[in-house]
Amino acid sequence: MATVEVIALGGVGEIGKNCTVVKQGDDMVVIDCGLSFPNEEMLGVDIVIPDFTYLVENKEKIRGVFLTHAHEDHVGALPYLLSQIDVPVYASEFTLLLIKQKLEEKLPGKEADLRPFNFGDQIQAGALTVEPVRVTHSIPENACMAVRTEHGIIFFTGDFKFDFTPVDNKLTNITRIGEIGREGVLALMSDSTNVERPGWGPSEARVSEGFRKVFSEAQGRILLTTFASNIHRMQQLVDVAAEFGRKVACVGRRMEQNLDICSRMGYIKMPKDVMVRLDEIRDYRDDQLAILTTGSQGEPMSALVQMSKGEYGRLQIKTGDTLIYSARPIPGNEGAIWRTVNRLIRQGCRVIYESPTPIHVSGHAYQEELKMMINLTRPFYIAPVHGEPRHQFLYNEIAKDMGYPEHRIFTLDAGVPLVFEETNAGYGEPVACGRVLVDNAGTVGISDEVLRDRSHISKDGIIMITLAVDVEKGELVGDPIMQSKGFQGPDGTLDKAYEILWDNLKQLSREEVRDVSRVRHATSDVVRRFIQKRTSLRPLVLPSVIEI
Amino acid sequence: MATVEVIALGGVGEIGKNCTVVKQGDDMVVIDCGLSFPNEEMLGVDIVIPDFTYLVENKEKIRGVFLTHAHEDHVGALPYLLSQIDVPVYASEFTLLLIKQKLEEKLPGKEADLRPFNFGDQIQAGALTVEPVRVTHSIPENACMAVRTEHGIIFFTGDFKFDFTPVDNKLTNITRIGEIGREGVLALMSDSTNVERPGWGPSEARVSEGFRKVFSEAQGRILLTTFASNIHRMQQLVDVAAEFGRKVACVGRRMEQNLDICSRMGYIKMPKDVMVRLDEIRDYRDDQLAILTTGSQGEPMSALVQMSKGEYGRLQIKTGDTLIYSARPIPGNEGAIWRTVNRLIRQGCRVIYESPTPIHVSGHAYQEELKMMINLTRPFYIAPVHGEPRHQFLYNEIAKDMGYPEHRIFTLDAGVPLVFEETNAGYGEPVACGRVLVDNAGTVGISDEVLRDRSHISKDGIIMITLAVDVEKGELVGDPIMQSKGFQGPDGTLDKAYEILWDNLKQLSREEVRDVSRVRHATSDVVRRFIQKRTSLRPLVLPSVIEI
Repeated sequence: MATVEVIALGGVGEIGKNCTVVKQGDDMVVIDCGLSFPNEEMLGVDIVIPDFTYLVENKEKIRGVFLTHAHEDHVGALPYLLSQIDVPVYASEFTLLLIKQKLEEKLPGKEADLRPFNFGDQIQAGALTVEPVRVTHSIPENACMAVRTEHGIIFFTGDFKFDFTPVDNKLTNITRIGEIGREGVLALMSDSTNVERPGWGPSEARVSEGFRKVFSEAQGRILLTTFASNIHRMQQLVDVAAEFGRKVACVGRRMEQNLDICSRMGYIKMPKDVMVRLDEIRDYRDDQLAILTTGSQGEPMSALVQMSKGEYGRLQIKTGDTLIYSARPIPGNEGAIWRTVNRLIRQGCRVIYESPTPIHVSGHAYQEELKMMINLTRPFYIAPVHGEPRHQFLYNEIAKDMGYPEHRIFTLDAGVPLVFEETNAGYGEPVACGRVLVDNAGTVGISDEVLRDRSHISKDGIIMITLAVDVEKGELVGDPIMQSKGFQGPDGTLDKAYEILWDNLKQLSREEVRDVSRVRHATSDVVRRFIQKRTSLRPLVLPSVIEI
Repeated sequence: MATVEVIALGGVGEIGKNCTVVKQGDDMVVIDCGLSFPNEEMLGVDIVIPDFTYLVENKEKIRGVFLTHAHEDHVGALPYLLSQIDVPVYASEFTLLLIKQKLEEKLPGKEADLRPFNFGDQIQAGALTVEPVRVTHSIPENACMAVRTEHGIIFFTGDFKFDFTPVDNKLTNITRIGEIGREGVLALMSDSTNVERPGWGPSEARVSEGFRKVFSEAQGRILLTTFASNIHRMQQLVDVAAEFGRKVACVGRRMEQNLDICSRMGYIKMPKDVMVRLDEIRDYRDDQLAILTTGSQGEPMSALVQMSKGEYGRLQIKTGDTLIYSARPIPGNEGAIWRTVNRLIRQGCRVIYESPTPIHVSGHAYQEELKMMINLTRPFYIAPVHGEPRHQFLYNEIAKDMGYPEHRIFTLDAGVPLVFEETNAGYGEPVACGRVLVDNAGTVGISDEVLRDRSHISKDGIIMITLAVDVEKGELVGDPIMQSKGFQGPDGTLDKAYEILWDNLKQLSREEVRDVSRVRHATSDVVRRFIQKRTSLRPLVLPSVIEI
């Protein structure tokens, strides 16, 4: 019997860039292919994707990439993978619909091998089979993935919650998960994002109650911002708007696109005559209007942020408006979001961001739901995914409370295979793995050196010194030029540095001047030391010596 | 009768840098002189202080700076003010004790005019009087300030909560606040930080219960991190440690200093023989030890962060340790704090950061406490301070609920005087006001241009081009040099840019080359346009032309 390996290339010890390989002999399947967002230290970075070296090296073995749902942290890196290798991509019809847009933008002309699945399908992938099982989350058509191996089933929960009143009425197939549990789950790879929250999370449907409260009180226009992929949230907004006799308009490209596609395909059931175009809102009174908008993360170019600055041409905030902030901040965006909220309030807009009746709920399982999943699947081994170390730790405490002994619980590290043999499991040899940084222009692989330079310059700035050397004569020619950007010391610091540098350079012998590398080092040394001694700042000092 | 003006130079529309002037005729008093922390856009900035131009211009009128308590957002800018003008500083004995350390560090040799007050003192300040009234907060010896003017009392709550079981047993002088209310409060300037929280905040004393729970369960060493100024928190830790027979050691310079001063001066009542030096802990078993440490904000150089990286020489984390995170993240520090927590967990340290029994409570009043303050002081006018616009807005809603009409409620902007005349109040002409940025080296007044350059370079980097021109001959001499830092485009971008630049430069006539400024502009134009077209990145392009 071959060993079975589960290798997370991301999504463990972190939230984001979920991407996990199941390998048995010469067959591999990949579950999800997500991105994550940069932290505050990754200057100039737009998104972070997994290092796909291991997948590229094993491309002949990959039988398919299986996507659980259409959130960026599960599908956002797919264009970058498909730009390197051709592999079939399996996902629900809905998920494919959303990622097709992105593939067209990022890989124009690429004919990707996209294969829709239905829940319950048994998809053959070499000697492995993959079965998607319906489970509720904050996006339609979301799947758990049961991967059948020679040793038993590896069960990926993906992102989930147990919502008994889902907005689309499509319930989790709890019975099927139980059947799979009875068949024999070797290992459960469980969502752990919300493991800090006790109890059972509120249903997505509760948000309608929160909306109704706002609608029943608001005198003016109602605006709502949420993630553009949160189809259920938009469904509830249009339903409640219709209930209160308000028309709905939408601003923000991605949201308009999704609303359009989803209503055409039936993923949003549009009440009759509820939608209006933005240029039609002038035909209605303020209390007859609701407006969906992007910008829930304080993105500088989004409609909401521009409105908050009074810089959005198509729509202006006015006194009496009410904004429902129906989202959670992705860590790192808090500052930008609160600045937006504060600007809106200053313009006379009421902003509802907290409410006793919820206006936002999480799509991830709370503690009792996580236990319910363990109860249903009854796995032999357990490993939390989709969590930072603190989440993995707490999840494992819960598993212990449920009777799991230490040796059946694993805390995965990215790139370290969890190897299942016939009668035991343990860690294998690490594979190539890491993070790859993508900048705003789409350049892949921003280097650590570049990041270090950016961080360095962003703190204390940069000082550039230009010299010209006549190498034959061993003489400096012309006057050195000293320029700085982003550097600010006490007045006169640069003048003094220039003086000291000049004094030092004049003392070099002809022989020393001929050695251009020596001139460069001397220049950099003198200036760096002087600045540091005088100001205790450490700007990047960059000499440039031109030879003539 | 003279008009009375209240002018906030900071602390309104923001949390931090509290500094407010009360002016009547030729007399001014200043309440607090605080700093704030930079947001994520202020690269290389250490702290932010108010612009003191208005105070410097009116230094002859300032009768004193009155400090409510020793938190940085109320006293942190004092050294910068005292470096510009000499004014008497009034504060409690305890507050003076803490700021003396900082004055000695920042203004060595400076003889500041520090005047201790007792609660209940009527301090004459020109024609004004100032009365500090004791009120509870998360630091000892905290005051409200009642400023008596010709028109009535301006009452500053400072930071407060109504804590009926304060750790030092020193209760709020509620009766005195009520008497002042009966005497006649013209305007209440109220803390509004926690206005989003309904109900009444928990007492600081509840934290002891949280500590006891952790102490009763922990097998190994217990570490605790909190703000170095949180004397009550440290008091509770040493008390609970003594109760459980554990010794307490302390790491982190500021915390050691404060612990030392406060225990010598009696602000911490030290149980007998509880403290040990760090080098003595080897004489005790792990379950006989508790360790206080700095680093609650994830500061890179703090003891806790260095321990989490295994880089702290004096103390190492080991499996079985428990850390109590007894603080709240200052906005912007979340990332650094969670990275620290995750690293500690990976080292086998249990980290308690949330708990049904609190291990941290806020020092600021919740909604019902804010209402209680309005009830006690019965002001004619109301203006929330110590809050962002969202807090000011909510506070004003509460005031309206309590029956205050719109025209008696003010939303202050920094620098805009609130002017009280005999029978009415309104806004006056703005005074010089703003933020002043201080960098890590203590340089005051980082310019917007420098910040813009840092932000620019931190995103897309910088490209420097060096040329030498023989002005007489109208010729370029030697080969141009192109260097970049923090820039990364697709492979070959810089080589291609160099080529195109060289081609362009060669086509310049002798006359054109003689115009060095023209050469500089042409260089910058060609390179900038090429890079942007090819990569859609916008690095800073900086040519340097040396004349020989």
